Amino acid sequence: MIPDAFALPPGQIYLLGHSLGPAPKAALDAVTRAAAVEWAQGLAASWNDAGWFAAPGRLGDKVARLLGAPAAAAIVADSVTVNVFKLACAALALAPGRRTILLEAETFPTDGYVIEALARLRGDEGLRVERRPHTELFEDIGSDVALIVTAQVDFRTGAAFDLAACTAAAARAGARVLWDLSHSLGALAIDATAIELAVGCGYKYLNGGPGAPGWAFVAPHLAEALETPLPGWFGHAAPFAFEPAYRPAAGAQRFAAGTPPILSFAALEAALDVALRVAPRDAEAHVRALQAAFLDALGDALPCVTPAACGAHLAFTHPEALALKTALIGAGVVGDFRPPDTIRFGFSPLFLTERDVIDAARIVRETLAQDDWRGAAHAGVVT
Amino acid sequence: MIPDAFALPPGQIYLLGHSLGPAPKAALDAVTRAAAVEWAQGLAASWNDAGWFAAPGRLGDKVARLLGAPAAAAIVADSVTVNVFKLACAALALAPGRRTILLEAETFPTDGYVIEALARLRGDEGLRVERRPHTELFEDIGSDVALIVTAQVDFRTGAAFDLAACTAAAARAGARVLWDLSHSLGALAIDATAIELAVGCGYKYLNGGPGAPGWAFVAPHLAEALETPLPGWFGHAAPFAFEPAYRPAAGAQRFAAGTPPILSFAALEAALDVALRVAPRDAEAHVRALQAAFLDALGDALPCVTPAACGAHLAFTHPEALALKTALIGAGVVGDFRPPDTIRFGFSPLFLTERDVIDAARIVRETLAQDDWRGAAHAGVVT
Repeated sequence: MIPDAFALPPGQIYLLGHSLGPAPKAALDAVTRAAAVEWAQGLAASWNDAGWFAAPGRLGDKVARLLGAPAAAAIVADSVTVNVFKLACAALALAPGRRTILLEAETFPTDGYVIEALARLRGDEGLRVERRPHTELFEDIGSDVALIVTAQVDFRTGAAFDLAACTAAAARAGARVLWDLSHSLGALAIDATAIELAVGCGYKYLNGGPGAPGWAFVAPHLAEALETPLPGWFGHAAPFAFEPAYRPAAGAQRFAAGTPPILSFAALEAALDVALRVAPRDAEAHVRALQAAFLDALGDALPCVTPAACGAHLAFTHPEALALKTALIGAGVVGDFRPPDTIRFGFSPLFLTERDVIDAARIVRETLAQDDWRGAAHAGVVT
Repeated sequence: MIPDAFALPPGQIYLLGHSLGPAPKAALDAVTRAAAVEWAQGLAASWNDAGWFAAPGRLGDKVARLLGAPAAAAIVADSVTVNVFKLACAALALAPGRRTILLEAETFPTDGYVIEALARLRGDEGLRVERRPHTELFEDIGSDVALIVTAQVDFRTGAAFDLAACTAAAARAGARVLWDLSHSLGALAIDATAIELAVGCGYKYLNGGPGAPGWAFVAPHLAEALETPLPGWFGHAAPFAFEPAYRPAAGAQRFAAGTPPILSFAALEAALDVALRVAPRDAEAHVRALQAAFLDALGDALPCVTPAACGAHLAFTHPEALALKTALIGAGVVGDFRPPDTIRFGFSPLFLTERDVIDAARIVRETLAQDDWRGAAHAGVVT
């Protein structure tokens, strides 16, 4: 779509945008400017002059636009882990008589750790966490269920929930859903009216840089009723009045907490501006076109385990998936490995062309047809 | 001491290192390298190849060295706000029979917000927060007190607690202290054996950049007994095994949570390396020399309200402190204003010389002696 907006190293087809998106050229410029000009020359005056102070809300508004939501419905702050904690804790207080949190059994582990910890922290209330398989998560939701926490897209298989149908099923049972959209926003078109609570990262399909700050969305009709368990000065109605008592800011801003890491914010903001150049429905349509072209060109070379209702990555299994991933990197196709036997290819919309993915599929086929691909050394464990 | 290590804009004497430290030249290089090389060229492989994955622990070890503590006693992660929550929550679990948290009445507001929220969150246990004046915080500590939370250095007056004496007083009463050392580390020599739990920011005297990530310290004898309320995958013993159950990493690493914002980490790491070039006791001695030189040159031009036992900034009162701050910025001396009537000057050790602060004092005297300094426009509210 707009590959010229990205600084892509030559000689590789990067099918890893679902892990760490590549660098938008504007993000590189923005980071250098934030450091060398705003910080080094502007110093503390840049909190006003360079708009640092307003960054959590300003970036949040851009996330909201990508979600198709009104301004002030989202905030950029902290990490996904911390934002899951904040929103889950706030949501539980809205359903004081209910004691169960449903969690997808295979959800991204850090989300599960935080939810289990939250239940322990509030152990006196008898909160309990019930883990369910993906296919049963939204079935038979009992009257004790306060909250359902899950990623929309399974980080391993790529299977995706239908946001509107699942949120509605939960609502019929009187429960709310906290969606982790880390594998969604930037690749899939989201209908903001179909979600009430959501979090996501900035570093996958949003291309905001390594460990880019996370975001949190709360539906406008809920925001004023929500209380953050981590009230920091950036979520205060008047941060620089230094009031001893906390008063929440309006809307999602209340979920900002401490001082934001501005250099990482600068990269993410530029990346959000790049993402906003493409309508989300066009981005998703391109994802589907890339996936179809890849699968068509791949043929039966590798078995795909991703169902039709899916996010932007496809998962394949191979008994020697790790060695295969390594061999493919050597051949210029970058995917990743998830234990025990999964290889993932991400079809990030903004910088990949159909030509790229057809070439990639050809290289996968050619590699598998060689005798010696298993001999390639393993380059690392983290990708 | 080492002003050549910093990129300082000409024409101003920057007495605002207690708010946002200036940019170390190496930090600017590190940010550009992290973005343009490690991210843009190395892409996801940089999680291993560029050492991103190990960053929270590696930077934590550097913080530990500055504290005079062993490796693995500190971690760099999240913000001060979030780290106060994590450590306070963990510490309370060590004293299950005690129900009171003492809080300095005038502590930095965000610390207070979080502690009050934590008490509400665990309301079923009857936790209560008692706010006390600075001078009474460590007096008559009752047998119900689990934890005392305070900054070492008061962000307004600059008054500083004696870490060892106060920690010992708390220990005699069976209580622990969570120190916020945001205004301490990088300016004052800390005796790590005199503290058990501490947090701090990276953007003041550590010169780590705007909103630089925070750090958390836990004494080695306590770490293994502490449970984080925000268990994220970066605090897991084996993050990339993607285990559904949380197992804490050893030492302070368990207090890492979500994916770290690497671009901001890169700046902070370079700044920590600069800070480590000067022995903390030498840095503190230089702070004291700068303060003495400034006060001597200032004479009775402005009343100083900072007591002798203090941190690295000095606070002065003036009925028109905001206008005076603005006029001084126009004259090349950068301090800041805190409502209602305080003007603060920070004596950050690494980049200021005695010549600088003597010049600054002269400019303060000259400005006050002019008739028209009140006419200067107010340049902003946030510094």
